[in-house]
Amino acid sequence: MNGAESLVRTLVAGNVDVCFANPGTSEMHFVAALDRVEGMRCVLGLFEGVVTGAADGYFRMRNRPASTLLHLGPGLANGLANLHNAKKANSGIVNIVGQHATYHIDYNAPLTSDIEGLARPMSAWLRTSPDAQSVAKDGAAAIAAARHAQIATLILPADTAWNEADGIAAVPQDAQRASYSREAVEAAARVLRTGEPTLLLMTGGALTERGLALASRIAGKTGCKVMGQTYNPKMARGRGRFAIDRIPYVIEQALPSLKDFRHIVLVEANDPVAFFAYPDKPSLLKPEGCEVHRMTDQGEHSVAALEALAGVLGAKAADAQPQQLVELVQPTGALTHAAIAMAIALAIPENAIVVDESITTGRGFFPPTAASAPHDWLQNMGGSIGFSTPVATGAAVACPDRKVICMVGDGSAMYTLQSLWTQARENLDVTTIVFANRNYQILKGEFAGVGAGEMGARALDMLSIDRPTLDWCALAKGMGVPARSVTTAEDFAAALAQAVAEPGPKLIEVVM
Amino acid sequence: MNGAESLVRTLVAGNVDVCFANPGTSEMHFVAALDRVEGMRCVLGLFEGVVTGAADGYFRMRNRPASTLLHLGPGLANGLANLHNAKKANSGIVNIVGQHATYHIDYNAPLTSDIEGLARPMSAWLRTSPDAQSVAKDGAAAIAAARHAQIATLILPADTAWNEADGIAAVPQDAQRASYSREAVEAAARVLRTGEPTLLLMTGGALTERGLALASRIAGKTGCKVMGQTYNPKMARGRGRFAIDRIPYVIEQALPSLKDFRHIVLVEANDPVAFFAYPDKPSLLKPEGCEVHRMTDQGEHSVAALEALAGVLGAKAADAQPQQLVELVQPTGALTHAAIAMAIALAIPENAIVVDESITTGRGFFPPTAASAPHDWLQNMGGSIGFSTPVATGAAVACPDRKVICMVGDGSAMYTLQSLWTQARENLDVTTIVFANRNYQILKGEFAGVGAGEMGARALDMLSIDRPTLDWCALAKGMGVPARSVTTAEDFAAALAQAVAEPGPKLIEVVM
Repeated sequence: MNGAESLVRTLVAGNVDVCFANPGTSEMHFVAALDRVEGMRCVLGLFEGVVTGAADGYFRMRNRPASTLLHLGPGLANGLANLHNAKKANSGIVNIVGQHATYHIDYNAPLTSDIEGLARPMSAWLRTSPDAQSVAKDGAAAIAAARHAQIATLILPADTAWNEADGIAAVPQDAQRASYSREAVEAAARVLRTGEPTLLLMTGGALTERGLALASRIAGKTGCKVMGQTYNPKMARGRGRFAIDRIPYVIEQALPSLKDFRHIVLVEANDPVAFFAYPDKPSLLKPEGCEVHRMTDQGEHSVAALEALAGVLGAKAADAQPQQLVELVQPTGALTHAAIAMAIALAIPENAIVVDESITTGRGFFPPTAASAPHDWLQNMGGSIGFSTPVATGAAVACPDRKVICMVGDGSAMYTLQSLWTQARENLDVTTIVFANRNYQILKGEFAGVGAGEMGARALDMLSIDRPTLDWCALAKGMGVPARSVTTAEDFAAALAQAVAEPGPKLIEVVM
Repeated sequence: MNGAESLVRTLVAGNVDVCFANPGTSEMHFVAALDRVEGMRCVLGLFEGVVTGAADGYFRMRNRPASTLLHLGPGLANGLANLHNAKKANSGIVNIVGQHATYHIDYNAPLTSDIEGLARPMSAWLRTSPDAQSVAKDGAAAIAAARHAQIATLILPADTAWNEADGIAAVPQDAQRASYSREAVEAAARVLRTGEPTLLLMTGGALTERGLALASRIAGKTGCKVMGQTYNPKMARGRGRFAIDRIPYVIEQALPSLKDFRHIVLVEANDPVAFFAYPDKPSLLKPEGCEVHRMTDQGEHSVAALEALAGVLGAKAADAQPQQLVELVQPTGALTHAAIAMAIALAIPENAIVVDESITTGRGFFPPTAASAPHDWLQNMGGSIGFSTPVATGAAVACPDRKVICMVGDGSAMYTLQSLWTQARENLDVTTIVFANRNYQILKGEFAGVGAGEMGARALDMLSIDRPTLDWCALAKGMGVPARSVTTAEDFAAALAQAVAEPGPKLIEVVM
């Protein structure tokens, strides 16, 4: 078998059995191997940002890596923005990038570029296979790295794919990983026992149904507050689950939300920091004198740590805080932000996966959707817009039995709209809701936030995308996804009901 | 004035008066400055690949740089593929990338990334401004670098934009640049006088009407052959201009086209190299024993060198080779590649700018279009597909009085389809012709070329984009560009005639 086949067989044997791909000439032997190897599902994207974002969504839902297949430096470059988002989400990806044959690189052909240089900023693990005999072993090492929730970039020169290889390689045994630190749990318990105002700030693996239930008990027992980061890779939400607030995005709201805390206990979360810097406003959001204590870090077992913490504190199920949920009432009339939020909260079906890139429109979605049917809520961790439609695509590939609801602003959706085609091709069960406010609405607030003064006509022109208006029904139709446009709450509710009832991709344009 | 305003004023004073932009929060002070500074045209793109590709097209047509405005690392990342193409085309760009405020970078906020690391592979000049007082001077240095046909990346931390600056800066005086080497011209003359089979291989600045006319005289006088590279940034073509062949893309055709040459004289061109490596085929295309002589390099004045060479050789206007042009006859019936080529050759209007990313469909376009009205022909220099619709956009901004005809395969067009929206918004005179063969057709040839054997169902599935078919009329409508679909040569000719007659953006889907 050749190097490409040895790699595909190694991937399948290593449980990496989905490949999101946009291949070119240098990857043709990998593509050819798909016909000789059983067990690899290859999903085509028409743009590389779809490919890498889909791999992010897949990891978030399955907690194991998919692979990508990208065409040399520029193909990788097109995928970097969503690799950035995936890196910040701690999503593991076996990121495979073709390269010219080793002996061809120095001739500076048109597609030659510094692929390792391009990959390095987003890759925790990075290797160019030197020969066909190394490809399987390198692929296995990439799988091992990606299982540790990292981007592992494997660059595959064409001759290492077509030359004869030795066979497949086994993924190296996992090193024993720390579950959590008992000392850190006891330190957290000491803080919580002081009775001083304390925030339990959670993200990552802590935000499962079980992790949240434990946090609720701890809060009930000790009086601490529990919050999530502004953005979280995946959060269990909906009826019967402990509903927590997140730190607000807007710094003028974030600062008061944290101002009274004397301690912050971090459960995988970061010391809270402003998304952007603003003149004369702080970068760090905690108040002066607030002490920060890390209980778990990314990669540790936060739920086990929370179990231990609850045990040390004697926090029991009966201590869980009672919750006041918003009453959900079918909205009517104009498509206000509140009406949109309510309609979505009512429509989310049991076990749905909600991918949230709603930006300004969605700032009020959290309270009503806490009363929705149980679901998972995925957010953008790296701030590079165009994340949601690819992540929804990958999540739908990962979980074919779950409805995926992708909520996205029209500005964001344009970056990676090619996702819709892959959803149509694979008949993925994704409902995309595009909030067509026809602005980079968030930037209007940011313009004021950074103290840029009064907005003149030219500045306004750079933040408005209404000339011409985008016709999302036409764009969806162009890529084979049925769509409808709504302008009232009643129409929106009807469109959502239809989309939830029927499987397969749909798009709803919410004209605001 | 603040740093952002000092930069915008420096750009305008330095004759960089078009900015292709997709800004975010960290760039809001730059956007605000647009309202305080006269003379900067800011063109919004909804995806950064449109922005950077447009800057490439602008430089090719105006021979002076435009600027970009990109949002931090991921915004830059989305623009890298077309920066790669621009770099390989020797297009100068003042590539401006926002960054977090200097004091905010270390907090690792979501959008934080290694921006310099991302920029380095595509940038000949790279600098992060350290403070507001430096921004104007750094901007001026970036302009100077970009004027030398290079990518100059200036990274602008937000506080360097909003803090108080000292004023504008003048662009440093150009160092005296070599026009050409007299010795190299004389060496070329000696080679040409031997009478041995010699190829004059030209690209870049040599491919103007005047450069081609001089080459024709030299060929007539000495018997040498004149060819262009497979891909060239811009070539003067059409009736009354010396029509030259290019080295074929397909290696099995390229090798015989060069096999008889004893010498190759390079006029800006590269020693010819295969686009990709193929097993058991050479990377370098020249025959064994062929001597390569460089007459001019990129940045030298090739037309002046050709003038000198013609002078040394005594080649006069009367020596110019007579040419046999294809007779153009309006095609009828099926949309074969030949019929498509003929319809386009007839439709190209005087002084048009033709942007060619037609890949497989366009391989036969050169002979008939040599008989078209005089026009410029632009090609992809970096091989990263999705180049043409952005380059056409920038070319139309650069030359509002010229018709731009963008020819693109459906696979390629999907990478940067957001270009259509900018064309609609700016009412640019671009006719986009999408060849809808519903395949990554070139890869079917490449699959065989790299010796990947028989194509099975799964491999074929990765090269076919017909499930679902893309509806290009709907996609264009979705972005505000009128479109029609054609299935016969007559319909295509009618659609072309209409598109040429009416100004403004149009799209024609050629269903094959």
